[in-house]
Amino acid sequence: MPEFKVPLRDMRFVLHEVFDAPAMWARLPALTDSIDTDTADAILEEAAKVTSHLIAPLNRSGDEEGAQWHEGRVTTPIGFKQAYATYIEGGWVGLSGNPGFGGMGMPKMLAVQFEEMLYGANSSFALYSALSSGACLALDAHASDALKNLYLPPMYEGRWAGSMCLTEAHAGTDLGLIRTRAEPETDGSYKITGSKIFITGGDQDLTENIVHLVLAKLPNAPAGPKGISLFVVPKVLVNADGSLGAANAVSCGSIEHKMGIKASATCVMNFDGASGWLVGEENKGLAAMFTMMNYERLSIGIQGIGCAEASYQSAVTYARERVQGRAPTGALAPDKPADPIIAHPDVRRMLLGMKAMTEGGRAFACYVGQQLDLSKFSDDASERDCAQILVALLTPVAKAFFTDTGLESCINGQQVFGGHGYIREWGQEQLVRDVRIAQIYEGTNGIQALDLLGRKVLANDGVALRLFAREVRHFALHHESAYGSELLKALERLEGLSNWLLERAKANANEVGAASVEYLHLFGYVAYAYMWSRMAAVARSRLDRDPPFYAAKLATAEFYFARLLPRTLSLEASIRAGSAPLYGLADEQF
Amino acid sequence: MPEFKVPLRDMRFVLHEVFDAPAMWARLPALTDSIDTDTADAILEEAAKVTSHLIAPLNRSGDEEGAQWHEGRVTTPIGFKQAYATYIEGGWVGLSGNPGFGGMGMPKMLAVQFEEMLYGANSSFALYSALSSGACLALDAHASDALKNLYLPPMYEGRWAGSMCLTEAHAGTDLGLIRTRAEPETDGSYKITGSKIFITGGDQDLTENIVHLVLAKLPNAPAGPKGISLFVVPKVLVNADGSLGAANAVSCGSIEHKMGIKASATCVMNFDGASGWLVGEENKGLAAMFTMMNYERLSIGIQGIGCAEASYQSAVTYARERVQGRAPTGALAPDKPADPIIAHPDVRRMLLGMKAMTEGGRAFACYVGQQLDLSKFSDDASERDCAQILVALLTPVAKAFFTDTGLESCINGQQVFGGHGYIREWGQEQLVRDVRIAQIYEGTNGIQALDLLGRKVLANDGVALRLFAREVRHFALHHESAYGSELLKALERLEGLSNWLLERAKANANEVGAASVEYLHLFGYVAYAYMWSRMAAVARSRLDRDPPFYAAKLATAEFYFARLLPRTLSLEASIRAGSAPLYGLADEQF
Repeated sequence: MPEFKVPLRDMRFVLHEVFDAPAMWARLPALTDSIDTDTADAILEEAAKVTSHLIAPLNRSGDEEGAQWHEGRVTTPIGFKQAYATYIEGGWVGLSGNPGFGGMGMPKMLAVQFEEMLYGANSSFALYSALSSGACLALDAHASDALKNLYLPPMYEGRWAGSMCLTEAHAGTDLGLIRTRAEPETDGSYKITGSKIFITGGDQDLTENIVHLVLAKLPNAPAGPKGISLFVVPKVLVNADGSLGAANAVSCGSIEHKMGIKASATCVMNFDGASGWLVGEENKGLAAMFTMMNYERLSIGIQGIGCAEASYQSAVTYARERVQGRAPTGALAPDKPADPIIAHPDVRRMLLGMKAMTEGGRAFACYVGQQLDLSKFSDDASERDCAQILVALLTPVAKAFFTDTGLESCINGQQVFGGHGYIREWGQEQLVRDVRIAQIYEGTNGIQALDLLGRKVLANDGVALRLFAREVRHFALHHESAYGSELLKALERLEGLSNWLLERAKANANEVGAASVEYLHLFGYVAYAYMWSRMAAVARSRLDRDPPFYAAKLATAEFYFARLLPRTLSLEASIRAGSAPLYGLADEQF
Repeated sequence: MPEFKVPLRDMRFVLHEVFDAPAMWARLPALTDSIDTDTADAILEEAAKVTSHLIAPLNRSGDEEGAQWHEGRVTTPIGFKQAYATYIEGGWVGLSGNPGFGGMGMPKMLAVQFEEMLYGANSSFALYSALSSGACLALDAHASDALKNLYLPPMYEGRWAGSMCLTEAHAGTDLGLIRTRAEPETDGSYKITGSKIFITGGDQDLTENIVHLVLAKLPNAPAGPKGISLFVVPKVLVNADGSLGAANAVSCGSIEHKMGIKASATCVMNFDGASGWLVGEENKGLAAMFTMMNYERLSIGIQGIGCAEASYQSAVTYARERVQGRAPTGALAPDKPADPIIAHPDVRRMLLGMKAMTEGGRAFACYVGQQLDLSKFSDDASERDCAQILVALLTPVAKAFFTDTGLESCINGQQVFGGHGYIREWGQEQLVRDVRIAQIYEGTNGIQALDLLGRKVLANDGVALRLFAREVRHFALHHESAYGSELLKALERLEGLSNWLLERAKANANEVGAASVEYLHLFGYVAYAYMWSRMAAVARSRLDRDPPFYAAKLATAEFYFARLLPRTLSLEASIRAGSAPLYGLADEQF
């Protein structure tokens, strides 16, 4: 199996050159003392070592062995425990955590690069800490100071992990249906009773404690989503001094047998009158949980990019080494029995498709990371507000588009290998199995699309889209010559379609869901056109500094505009056919 | 796991109603006495029983257990041996085999329906006999009478199986590179020496003997594909009276660990001076093997349809039963805590996409089967020739388009289940893993696309496409009102693009491979538009006989034209961008 190499040069390109993060860091008081170009590079290099040398080598063996459940306890595959111990020594779990409680306070723009490395190296391993980071964020935003003081430091340290307990057997997308109950006790705590499923890292043997964030209903809570509260429920009870006490009434009933991410334990969690503490206000639990979910959504999106990058690296290596057939224009390696398959146009098409989408996704993740940083660290309220609007608009795009196109890339990366891609030995099939979950969990991509179109684009008469469009239009008109008109055309397609949908949705509520997934894809392709325009502009201005590197960026941009952006044509045509063709059949005629 | 039900009514619809097979059977002397509507229906019903009751129940357990290799011997999963014994009693292996040697002589139009059932029930099981049927075809077409008399009867009976030994570790797509040698012996036999990989059913415990069809090189054979000969190499040597003799020097070195089709043994086969007999002429082995490969290509294409149908059935059942959220237009089941998810437009979009593509594929498979039957059984030489040209043109489309869209359908069928689609329990993830191989084996879909565009469409100045286009145009102009103009427009897009490519390819050999995969998809969508036009025309004319059934066909046709056919727009735009964007990067810049 080929070695996973972190694409550091490409990461620095988007971080430092395309989005000029150092300039932003220098002007934001909260960041100016803690990070600059050199610090960022040092962190990235250290992260690359940890992920590629420590964690990536456990990817295949972790898949073969899988997480195991025995008498209520989960054991992770051989090597995970030791690697996790080394991993948390570096403070990686708290990379972008609140420094007031032991986090490193690093910007999200940097953290997204790290997350990509982690998922590219080993998606199962990545999940154990991804959930912790998200849980910390929710606690930091909504919990009382007492809870924060008790829980956050060991969680940022990585000694304790977090989990996210939402789903029940009959309540996945529709969380309003949950049945888990929370009964108030006289000491201010609650007794939590109920059963949750699909809990990533619900149990494991990596950390001393697991801090479950659990959605439950208080007695007499309103029905539906407005009657849900959020509780922190530790696996092991925590004494007032932070030391560990008795076991809580929380148990892992079993783990799922899955298509992929087999080294990640997906648990059934039973709460049998477990002690829990309220996070935030009563009945406002869903909103508080969304702090975590939004974090996880971007993170899970990045799983799509990380897996695609890993698949791409292996596919390129294989395509250079495997000789088979001759290039259509004549033998390129007449001394060999055949030419490397990278000579074949269709192999190049697959590789370039992977490259263009992965690099476009990396740039977009960094861009969303920048908006997250601005919304958190800017001292200008209007800049914060705008950034917050963009984050809300773009997060569902990132989650769903990264993962839908991430699957496509992994499938192409498998296809490049021919029969060798289907056998386990080369690792390409594992990436397909591992990345597939990312389209499903943290809200299926269908739900992301409804969120995008229904709640973000059409809400408030399209104000969020206008904000994004203003920025893209400004760039197209003022910064970029080569792709300015194509970018503008793509943007106008998106705007025209959005306006059309705004009208249609008023007349028929089915129009949103009928358009949403294809709309999200169209949005994604337009957003990547913006990314590739920005990358091309920077590459062109620096071409003479490192010709092979920047010329590759320009060639990939060219491929993107010529051969991928046209996918918007079909998406638009299908969307404009409307919802009627979906309702020609009665349910029983399917 | 939901039960697999054979869609008999839909199969009869395409066979009897859309393509009016009984009329063709009645006029062809070779078929008129052996098959009619009633016989066909009886065979389909019996086939449905065997596949859904005997073979489908072994699908999940077969995946869990997998084929096992121990000291050179393969054992199939529990239940396979017994089921196979019952299966061959029905004569299914020889369904369309030559009656002169014990085959049932049934038309391919019927056999494709059976193959769909078999793959839908259990792809791994299906492969053990699919290879036999193909091997029989190659022997029947190219072997001496002595070899045919010796091998075909037990193979049609299913007592012996066939295998197809082409690939070597360094020679997959590029068979000209094979190294397996054949040394002539004085008794007219040959000693075969070499190692083959990826041999489906290379060993198993289901049959008394395995008849390997092996590509090898004679001493002093020309280099490359023109120096390849075909040999029959039995696992157990066969005495002159057909009884079994000593073991041949053939052994199974190991089996592959794969993403899916785990109950199918994928073998490394070692030939150590094994006795073999020449099939057909020296150095003409590749052409002889293509008889088998073309058969297998259609068959493997049908794997895509079968898996998609199975996934669709489960997804529809789940979407009707699972309640979650409310329909956008208001509660449909106010008595329940939520509405069935089939009410949601995006769930319907996924289901209708699966339905439209699966039924379009079923019709197209039947249509290609009809051309195969005409090319074999017609007593009109010109009809035979035309049918043969269409078979050659359409086989690569069937193989690649059925399987590429089959994967898409299985992924959608998994997505409908949300998290439940990712766990093994429901079987949806197995279908994704099982169907994935069909895009790779029997010539990757990239190779199918090169075959289609390079050898079938552009060769002879486009004569084959003109033949197909003439038929489609005639139908669009004379038979169908509702979709006539859309079909014509789609056809003209295909023709215009083909002519454009014909010119471009003359100037630059890279243009074929740069366009080929997207061209094949565009061809597929146009072909399905033809199929849906034909199905809609029949459905409209019979609407009053069974309104729910035929109205569903009309509604699905409407969905196809409104929301799937527009994919041709993007495909065309990407193709017209040409090969230049694929060659902007040097190999080392990837």
